[in-house]
Amino acid sequence: MWTQCWLDYNNENKNVSSYEDYFTTLFVDGFKKDEVITTASDELSLASKGMFGRAIDVDIALPDKGIVIKKSEERTLGKEGYRIYCEGSRAYIEALTPEAVIYGTFRFLALVRTGALNGDTDITEIPENPIRMLDHWDNMDGSIERGYSGNSFFFENNDVIINDRTRDYARLIASLGINAVAINNVNVKDAATDLVNPRFIDKVRQMSDIFACFGVKLFLSLNYAMPIEYEPQSADPLDEKVIAWWKNKMKEVYASVPKLGGFLVKADSEGRPGPFTYGRTQADGANMLAEAIRPYGGIIIWRCFVYNCQQDWRDLTTDRAKAGYDYFHSLDGEFDDNVILQIKNGPMDFQPREPVSPLFGGMKNTNQMLEVQIAQEYTGHQIDVCYLIPWFKQILEFETYMNDDPESDTTVAGIVSGRARNVSLGGMVAVTNTGNDENWTGNDLAAANLYGFGRLSWNTKLGAEEIAREWIRLTFSDADGETEDIITRILMGSWPTYEKYTAPLGIGWMVKPHDHYGPSVDGYEYDRWGTYHRADWEGIGVERGPEGTGYSLQYNSPNKEMFGDPKTTPEELLLFFHKTPYKHILKSGKTVIQHIYDTHFEGYEEAKKMQAAWDSLEGRIDERAFKETRRRFELQVANAREWCDIVNSYFYRKCGIADEKGRKIY
Amino acid sequence: MWTQCWLDYNNENKNVSSYEDYFTTLFVDGFKKDEVITTASDELSLASKGMFGRAIDVDIALPDKGIVIKKSEERTLGKEGYRIYCEGSRAYIEALTPEAVIYGTFRFLALVRTGALNGDTDITEIPENPIRMLDHWDNMDGSIERGYSGNSFFFENNDVIINDRTRDYARLIASLGINAVAINNVNVKDAATDLVNPRFIDKVRQMSDIFACFGVKLFLSLNYAMPIEYEPQSADPLDEKVIAWWKNKMKEVYASVPKLGGFLVKADSEGRPGPFTYGRTQADGANMLAEAIRPYGGIIIWRCFVYNCQQDWRDLTTDRAKAGYDYFHSLDGEFDDNVILQIKNGPMDFQPREPVSPLFGGMKNTNQMLEVQIAQEYTGHQIDVCYLIPWFKQILEFETYMNDDPESDTTVAGIVSGRARNVSLGGMVAVTNTGNDENWTGNDLAAANLYGFGRLSWNTKLGAEEIAREWIRLTFSDADGETEDIITRILMGSWPTYEKYTAPLGIGWMVKPHDHYGPSVDGYEYDRWGTYHRADWEGIGVERGPEGTGYSLQYNSPNKEMFGDPKTTPEELLLFFHKTPYKHILKSGKTVIQHIYDTHFEGYEEAKKMQAAWDSLEGRIDERAFKETRRRFELQVANAREWCDIVNSYFYRKCGIADEKGRKIY
Repeated sequence: MWTQCWLDYNNENKNVSSYEDYFTTLFVDGFKKDEVITTASDELSLASKGMFGRAIDVDIALPDKGIVIKKSEERTLGKEGYRIYCEGSRAYIEALTPEAVIYGTFRFLALVRTGALNGDTDITEIPENPIRMLDHWDNMDGSIERGYSGNSFFFENNDVIINDRTRDYARLIASLGINAVAINNVNVKDAATDLVNPRFIDKVRQMSDIFACFGVKLFLSLNYAMPIEYEPQSADPLDEKVIAWWKNKMKEVYASVPKLGGFLVKADSEGRPGPFTYGRTQADGANMLAEAIRPYGGIIIWRCFVYNCQQDWRDLTTDRAKAGYDYFHSLDGEFDDNVILQIKNGPMDFQPREPVSPLFGGMKNTNQMLEVQIAQEYTGHQIDVCYLIPWFKQILEFETYMNDDPESDTTVAGIVSGRARNVSLGGMVAVTNTGNDENWTGNDLAAANLYGFGRLSWNTKLGAEEIAREWIRLTFSDADGETEDIITRILMGSWPTYEKYTAPLGIGWMVKPHDHYGPSVDGYEYDRWGTYHRADWEGIGVERGPEGTGYSLQYNSPNKEMFGDPKTTPEELLLFFHKTPYKHILKSGKTVIQHIYDTHFEGYEEAKKMQAAWDSLEGRIDERAFKETRRRFELQVANAREWCDIVNSYFYRKCGIADEKGRKIY
Repeated sequence: MWTQCWLDYNNENKNVSSYEDYFTTLFVDGFKKDEVITTASDELSLASKGMFGRAIDVDIALPDKGIVIKKSEERTLGKEGYRIYCEGSRAYIEALTPEAVIYGTFRFLALVRTGALNGDTDITEIPENPIRMLDHWDNMDGSIERGYSGNSFFFENNDVIINDRTRDYARLIASLGINAVAINNVNVKDAATDLVNPRFIDKVRQMSDIFACFGVKLFLSLNYAMPIEYEPQSADPLDEKVIAWWKNKMKEVYASVPKLGGFLVKADSEGRPGPFTYGRTQADGANMLAEAIRPYGGIIIWRCFVYNCQQDWRDLTTDRAKAGYDYFHSLDGEFDDNVILQIKNGPMDFQPREPVSPLFGGMKNTNQMLEVQIAQEYTGHQIDVCYLIPWFKQILEFETYMNDDPESDTTVAGIVSGRARNVSLGGMVAVTNTGNDENWTGNDLAAANLYGFGRLSWNTKLGAEEIAREWIRLTFSDADGETEDIITRILMGSWPTYEKYTAPLGIGWMVKPHDHYGPSVDGYEYDRWGTYHRADWEGIGVERGPEGTGYSLQYNSPNKEMFGDPKTTPEELLLFFHKTPYKHILKSGKTVIQHIYDTHFEGYEEAKKMQAAWDSLEGRIDERAFKETRRRFELQVANAREWCDIVNSYFYRKCGIADEKGRKIY
């Protein structure tokens, strides 16, 4: 069996009794019978059974007391907004569409369970991002690329699985306002081919129907090169035969799966063929698919993760960080209106710290989505705790200076939400961290990233700590205030701690090759992946200013100037942008080398403190969660020790500069 | 199909016509009808067909001209010696046993094919080593651990394969005088368990019979911990139930496979259980098995590859190099007389350069075998050419000073042959380099290592170049003298070149973890395997002298003193024994760092020269072999460039000392 994470109504043992009157009767006002409304109704009843031991009666007239799901007349709510308010002994959930009712219902229940609902409550919520999405890297054989929570719950033995867990998963993500999910791995040819073939299409439809009951649209990853294996024997986007093949394929797929949201595509990336193979542009490729899917209202989400993965480490001029902008920038304005570019938060690949991709604000007339990774590929494999929401907040708040209009929100959040250009396609997507482990996310605390991503993609103004506390209250529903404080401190400190004991000052990539867990300072230094630190006896860092690779020039002013000069570059990104001597003095008054030593010793100490804090919770939270997580903290502390000692020893052995505090370095 | 390597009689096109008269008639004098004699007779006929287009007539009386296989009366030939001589128009192969006739027959054919036989020929050959063995690391699923020549030809899909290739393989190795082969992987539990179980035992017998026709004894790797999974539920060597279980198992196995030579065992190594698990000694474990197998004349070959593979890299006192001696030395004299310790050539693990293991000469009353590896795990994966026979010669010639008797040959060769102690058990074994590739060994030139090991284990006095030329003449039988010279130069230079472009001055281990092909200077530096270089800004090397780990003290005097002092340590092993400053002046007048730069640039240049030399052979040798090998030379040159640039850049970035010649370092 598996847990229900933050949706376990059976564990409530406080706060909720004052709401019992609402859970007597449900009245649906103005909506026709609909599977989505039924889902909402069922959820309220499930909650009532868990909290009060009985189902809710459904009434056909307005009750004196109870919950009212009401079709709103307020057009400004849009397709996904809702209003929650109380009137006397009635609580109202109002919306224009059944999907929005789902979101309102889950929110209403969260307010109840956290004791935040009262007679004065009157909340209107409209999601900020049109698309709020999760990408699964699940393969047909049941493995998950970069999965740290067990195998796939979508696939097994090259077949599609549909069972109770499918529905439970849809419910979990719908409760956060997630409205799109791509279930198969975009990085693997077979996974991205099989599902649109007749063998599996009926199961895909069933899956799509289950998600639809929760207001979630199913997306599929698509193998751009698929027609090469069929009659066209080509994937040239301007070849009439290829165009006709795709039109026919889309017709076939939508005939079987009418609710499909669209497709996620990665082309010309890491060895996969794409438009470049035929001398065409990325826009040619994306638009060809977009036209084929247009009759069905579908969209094409096109990944921008294109770079030369056969780089020569000797070459100091080629810079992988520049590749995304170089390949896509000049195509600004050429993409169809049902194409969205899916852009990783940084120019490299989900490191614990990177600058924001210059494509945000660099392309001014193109639909864009922000892609982050809550699968902890480079942030501790869901062994180490690393609550990423504070990091995502910084990314969203980054000012791109896309235009000079003071009214326009040109932060990343403003751009991907569509606000900056007043368009309605855009959003946020996370490579997700779920699998068929009992607790869904490997580490119980990693569920805070799933929860947090969902909440943040709905409303980017929410605070990281606010989200953390909400998640704790819903997950550890019997936790007292001190317990909540302890877990909050662990979560809020976890990303800064992880950054301290791993790669310093934005340099990244000091991980074991392939696996990406644990330290190997030179692991990628002499390899073909474009991920270097260039450390020598004098200093460390990649010179990406105007005198270096020129990467800093891809930003709009004044970011361009800020990143171009080591004096104004934010120090947490100093080594990303500039080759810097070990003896360079930071604003703290410390040298770079002393900063490396200090942060690594601190990070290791902080990991031990987190472990001790967790140990203090024994007997105060669910035993399974406590023990599972305790086991992981033991591994995290061992990992932090390896990182601390290996990074410090590596640099000490390289520069010969002793630690000022005389601590043990090997 | 597959090639016949150095036994392809169809390609002869020179030299042999003068021998045609011998190949008219065969007379077997004094031997009864025997499957081994039949094998010899068949081989002579096969050769005759290939060289002269017709079979040999078998006569029942002494012919006027022809070949005579004669039972000798010369006791000094022993079980395996033979005499080859010519008398008038007759050539004689004389021996005491059928097995020796096989060796003599193959030798006779080699003399014919290389034009070395003449009327004055009178050769008596007695093998130096009682056991001349090949160990296969083949797994039941068909994979080969550290195999670089395709999959196994013994196993596939968890079953045993017996086909024409089995016989061709037996013939190939018998032609070298190999008399023992262990077909299954000693490192893997399942491989070392399955074959003694009823499911496979009949196929093992068939395999054993095929080898027996060529005078080769089949050995099996055994899982020491096997009885844990049966009724005894223990592997304690002093437990009566365990002893009884093994006695019964051996009885069962020998009832089915009476010709079995014995077993190869690895215990207490790299995570496998063994006698230590029960607080017993390695001798307790080996002797228990030896007693069980004694009634059948079998022997137990016990590997000494025991060390702590969970070492902390921070720990400067533990030294993996010391482990073998520490575990086994005190057990000297305690092993049964049908036990042989199989000792790797060096104290670490088959690096391109290591000192000789101090167990040779350190254990004075124990049967010992020398284990080398012709599978090129650390020497280029049969992509890079690395003819290892010059290296094996150095190992065999190493003087151990085991005793003070000036008459006693206490070199490694003297010890493992049994001469030093006048015992009859000992020998040489190679982890082999064969697989089901068309040419058996991946790189055609790697067959020279298989050939060379076989010949050297028969007679350690043969020269490395002598063996190389013999192999070339038999393999490229149409090669002219210049071609032979070119290939000889390639082979003879290949190991020195490989050593130059890889790890300098005996330090070893700068390879990519797990895979072991290509450079990663820090790849094992901060890991648990005990394989460190300890390089910092001032110098490099592991201090193993008396002031360091004390490893040098494991040798007998005067080796102990020689290795203990950096002034007298042979420079090719300097960094193995001593932490040495980069500015230390070598005998060449160069500093250590300049030596590193120079040898790496030279090694890369030499690789390119070898490639050019090979390219010059186009049209002069077999086209398949030429092209296959040319493809590998391209990969070798790319590999040599990576090694050269990465090692040089690594050390330059660490010490900041420029190359005196101003060459490009990154």
